[in-house]
Amino acid sequence: MVSLDLLQSLSLVSPTKIILLVIDGLGGLPRPETGKTELETAKTPNLDRLAASGVCGLSDPVGPGITPGSSPAHMALFGYDPVISNIGRGVLEIVGIDFDLQPGDVVARGNFCAVDKAGLVNDRRAGRIPSEKCVELCRLLDGLVIENVEILVRPVREHRFAVVFRGEGLSSEVSDSDPQQIGAPPKIVSALAIKAARTARIANQFVAQAEVILVGHFPVNMILLRGFSQRPVWPTMGEIYKLTPAAVVSYPMYRGLARLVGMDVLSTGNGIEEEFRTLIQNYKKYDFFFLHIKGADAAGEDGDFDRKVAVIEQVDQAVTGLIRLQPDVIVVTGDHSTPALLHAHSWHPVPVLLSSHWCRPDGVKEFSELACIDGGLGRLPATNIMSLVMAHALKLKKFGA
Amino acid sequence: MVSLDLLQSLSLVSPTKIILLVIDGLGGLPRPETGKTELETAKTPNLDRLAASGVCGLSDPVGPGITPGSSPAHMALFGYDPVISNIGRGVLEIVGIDFDLQPGDVVARGNFCAVDKAGLVNDRRAGRIPSEKCVELCRLLDGLVIENVEILVRPVREHRFAVVFRGEGLSSEVSDSDPQQIGAPPKIVSALAIKAARTARIANQFVAQAEVILVGHFPVNMILLRGFSQRPVWPTMGEIYKLTPAAVVSYPMYRGLARLVGMDVLSTGNGIEEEFRTLIQNYKKYDFFFLHIKGADAAGEDGDFDRKVAVIEQVDQAVTGLIRLQPDVIVVTGDHSTPALLHAHSWHPVPVLLSSHWCRPDGVKEFSELACIDGGLGRLPATNIMSLVMAHALKLKKFGA
Repeated sequence: MVSLDLLQSLSLVSPTKIILLVIDGLGGLPRPETGKTELETAKTPNLDRLAASGVCGLSDPVGPGITPGSSPAHMALFGYDPVISNIGRGVLEIVGIDFDLQPGDVVARGNFCAVDKAGLVNDRRAGRIPSEKCVELCRLLDGLVIENVEILVRPVREHRFAVVFRGEGLSSEVSDSDPQQIGAPPKIVSALAIKAARTARIANQFVAQAEVILVGHFPVNMILLRGFSQRPVWPTMGEIYKLTPAAVVSYPMYRGLARLVGMDVLSTGNGIEEEFRTLIQNYKKYDFFFLHIKGADAAGEDGDFDRKVAVIEQVDQAVTGLIRLQPDVIVVTGDHSTPALLHAHSWHPVPVLLSSHWCRPDGVKEFSELACIDGGLGRLPATNIMSLVMAHALKLKKFGA
Repeated sequence: MVSLDLLQSLSLVSPTKIILLVIDGLGGLPRPETGKTELETAKTPNLDRLAASGVCGLSDPVGPGITPGSSPAHMALFGYDPVISNIGRGVLEIVGIDFDLQPGDVVARGNFCAVDKAGLVNDRRAGRIPSEKCVELCRLLDGLVIENVEILVRPVREHRFAVVFRGEGLSSEVSDSDPQQIGAPPKIVSALAIKAARTARIANQFVAQAEVILVGHFPVNMILLRGFSQRPVWPTMGEIYKLTPAAVVSYPMYRGLARLVGMDVLSTGNGIEEEFRTLIQNYKKYDFFFLHIKGADAAGEDGDFDRKVAVIEQVDQAVTGLIRLQPDVIVVTGDHSTPALLHAHSWHPVPVLLSSHWCRPDGVKEFSELACIDGGLGRLPATNIMSLVMAHALKLKKFGA
């Protein structure tokens, strides 16, 4: 990949506009009866027209054979090395609930759980308590101060919450308290580095105080913490690419990711049409839009081939609204493949199409996995997409003399 | 390439089985009269069927334009960076004769040679003495102890032998004694690093003692040493991929290579059918098989186009025996190209086919250099093959959340 330092030294502000449309889990596998993937089955006249006038390819989100989670897959699309920039679980949890994580904060995922009289975990989720109960319990634990460290507790969903330790000199290099099995006691949080000794001590004190506070809140009588992590220190997309980027995303985790790379996260609704409308309404204010459609991945994970086809067809209809805006670059791709046949994310490369006045068209006439094999972008690491996008938007200076 | 650290963190044990069939020197160049390469000339209905249902591509063993030796080419196929993991000549020589090289051993290749009265080399190979004579002379030199270092001498073939220095604190950073020309005296072995001073001194004492011992063994009266090296410290394939790998290989050097990456090297015969039979007989005991066919490379090096075609056709027949085993992944490729037209290894990329229930088929209908250009694997570094193989065998966890 082209280094972010090089891109930063070459990028320039210009009036051109870019839309990155990510159909989550876009890539698929052929249904045995037809030999066609979800994308090949879907009727996509508008995407096919974009593919025919643009340049296509297949991308590897992390590397050949590697099945990515959504977070590294998106980091790669934004141009960041997905292995180096891999984000801790705690951070992912909290950025997904619109929490403004500060540099230096240490965050962990938490479960409200139940332990028996011997102190052994007998339900890691305390019967999946209702989210309202979670809100109530978080309010009880929120705001403690231990050794000058402020402890913020925020509900996520059901038994899940996030806890933020805010203060000087904290480190995320501590072990989980969650034993990840029943019949075992919660573990003592231990420092994995010398500098993390105080953080471990504070985390253990927090757990002890929480146990006292939770008395009388059956079925919950304990908490489990895991995935201690800190906000990564990255340059933002504004710094690297000199873009003013906006994210149109309804699903919480991706909103959090977009915020971590410095995008403005716009308010939008849940439906595909609503997201497209939000983009159109805000089109004048930004020069880069990350538009994220979750439904295709969800259908793939459910093994619902036909629903994934339907989501893709719906996007194809809505995409005419984007074409009408005449952006300088439209890229349509997925973050990874989620074949309905596998009911899961997979390692298969992801179709990419890049449409721009300045692309050199290839022979690809339709947007499909099979057709993209012959595309002019070839098979490329997903981290290369942003530099190609920037180039086609005429936002990169010449390198060297 | 995907780093071995990342693969090690993602790999998992599973009951799926993998066969990597390496047709040594597979890639070729077209015969001018027909415009077809060896592989394109061969009748390969079974490989074509695998290609049609699988996914194909062209691989670069070391890098575009680089002609590899067999050792780096195989290391790349096993997923190791072929430049970083390049193996010293001494080590290659000794692992090819089933010698159990220990960490810390320093090994060199040796020649029995002839020097004139002035001490100048007049035959680097002493008239290629018969192998039986080599065995006899090695027995005379074997077992010396110099400065607490044990010296083991093993015959290889004709005038060639290997010498192993075994003891504490040895280093392979010493120069050759072999001047690589006649009319020059053998060189003094010199330390190339301070820590290697003792090793150089011991090597020179060994040469001096050998000269005395060899008196009266005309035409041999001296030895030449070169390629001092040590066993590399690599993680094994078992450690990286959590596989239980076996090698079915008749040619000694490849048996040694397979042992260096931790494979069980099975006893087998010299013929293609015998090798396939050995694999089939041992199929239950392992989950990864490296099956190596030497004949195509040997024919290519001899410039014998038709014999190379015949070897490929013989493999095509035998491959039905593998298909019947229904392994989860079959990969058929070469370690490098050996076009009969060049009488040598070459830099041309190597056809690869990967057949698995989980591959996304491309439009390739036959296994040939020309057809593989349009394959779904694209043009890939050979080091990427193992991560793809592991993915298609469902032996890799998801990376990140």
